[in-house]
Amino acid sequence: MIQDTRAGQTLALAGEMADTARGIALDYFRTTLPYESKQDGSPVTLADKTIEARLRALIEGTFPEDGIVGEEQDSVRIDSPRLWIVDPIDGTKSFMTGMPTFGCLIATYEDGAPDLGVIELPALNERFVGKTGRATEFNGTPCHTRACTRLAEAIVYATSPDIFTEAELAAFDRVSKQAAIRRFGGDCYAYALLASGHVDLVIESELKPFDYLALVPVVQGAGGVITDWTGQPLTLESDGRVIAAATPELHAEALAALAL
Amino acid sequence: MIQDTRAGQTLALAGEMADTARGIALDYFRTTLPYESKQDGSPVTLADKTIEARLRALIEGTFPEDGIVGEEQDSVRIDSPRLWIVDPIDGTKSFMTGMPTFGCLIATYEDGAPDLGVIELPALNERFVGKTGRATEFNGTPCHTRACTRLAEAIVYATSPDIFTEAELAAFDRVSKQAAIRRFGGDCYAYALLASGHVDLVIESELKPFDYLALVPVVQGAGGVITDWTGQPLTLESDGRVIAAATPELHAEALAALAL
Repeated sequence: MIQDTRAGQTLALAGEMADTARGIALDYFRTTLPYESKQDGSPVTLADKTIEARLRALIEGTFPEDGIVGEEQDSVRIDSPRLWIVDPIDGTKSFMTGMPTFGCLIATYEDGAPDLGVIELPALNERFVGKTGRATEFNGTPCHTRACTRLAEAIVYATSPDIFTEAELAAFDRVSKQAAIRRFGGDCYAYALLASGHVDLVIESELKPFDYLALVPVVQGAGGVITDWTGQPLTLESDGRVIAAATPELHAEALAALAL
Repeated sequence: MIQDTRAGQTLALAGEMADTARGIALDYFRTTLPYESKQDGSPVTLADKTIEARLRALIEGTFPEDGIVGEEQDSVRIDSPRLWIVDPIDGTKSFMTGMPTFGCLIATYEDGAPDLGVIELPALNERFVGKTGRATEFNGTPCHTRACTRLAEAIVYATSPDIFTEAELAAFDRVSKQAAIRRFGGDCYAYALLASGHVDLVIESELKPFDYLALVPVVQGAGGVITDWTGQPLTLESDGRVIAAATPELHAEALAALAL
């Protein structure tokens, strides 16, 4: 019962965090917002910082013993049994350019694996919630990947060719040019479209834990497979190369073609 | 007065056409829809065909003397003084992959130039209407491009690197890598974001008249500049290379860097 209560509180907090992120993001979306370039060249705005600060305060208020890893501030209590992993705005470039496909990502992480994952799309009024052992829900209704088992029939997404190194781009080209359709754009939304049966394969690199950990329960709970490029489960220590597929068969075929 | 009545009827018809396209598109969006590959490799679905047939019937009912050029059926009365140019779904690949950035494009064309242009985004509940000599409206309210005059500060979009030939891609890279941010994805929506001040530059190729003519009044009526890659106005006979910029200064700088 104590465990159930904690699970319920965790889900409730994640929902409150997603609501909070949505509200702040929409207040700032399509307003004139200066941005700074971070050390890795990626931009950050006042919206990113404000959302992350508010989400951290919510976590501290409910689970002060949990650790927190976020995009914009230093990690805290990283040795705690459970961590919260937060990306206040995934797709900051989309957000900055008025494109409504940006998201907010929230995950919990324990025993070396993500457990709860939320992909919140403020400007699209869509929310995807995945949790180990449960069916992924899209706006409260269970959703499922499509039964695509062959690369030749697959719809493939990556956010941009610019995320890849030269060798990675060659590998991505090798896979995606065998597919039925390949498209760029989407950030975290491509994984949400995979979990809801519209996209079959997403292949990316250079992702950080706050970019990919929330995706794992969402994709897995919808029937998909998501790993690194060697087929290993995604953890805090993964190298940032991610492949998500609608089915195990498609995952296996794409993984073999992707090998660097 | 006769002219005013015709202009009013034209705007009213364009609005009715956009409403009709929206309704049909949303009926089909995110349903399982088989597709065919056309001769040029681009996909077409029942949604594309149904919308175009309905829009053609609306035109025939109000202006039976006007010509029609559409993506999915043969042109009719192409020698008429006025033509309607229709793309039932611009961004069919977005539409097929659940991505809500697809649009419907409607233009009128007379005296060798587009006069009215509508970019309708059914899944985003957004409509952009441009007309020669009038301010472009975004959901009924005037909108304007951003005052970005330097490439180094510009946000650049193209739908995909895959639309370019090798030489075109080299030219696009030359321009876009000097910009502040470059992003892929968007189809017609990138031009709408330019007209509403969120994107500064869109550079594409391989576009057909039904892909680009409706964009012209929308971009120009919002203060932007849109031409082919040599700086010439876009007509039915253009080569399909399009550059749109938020300001004349940015257009000139980008055009110079783009020269093949």
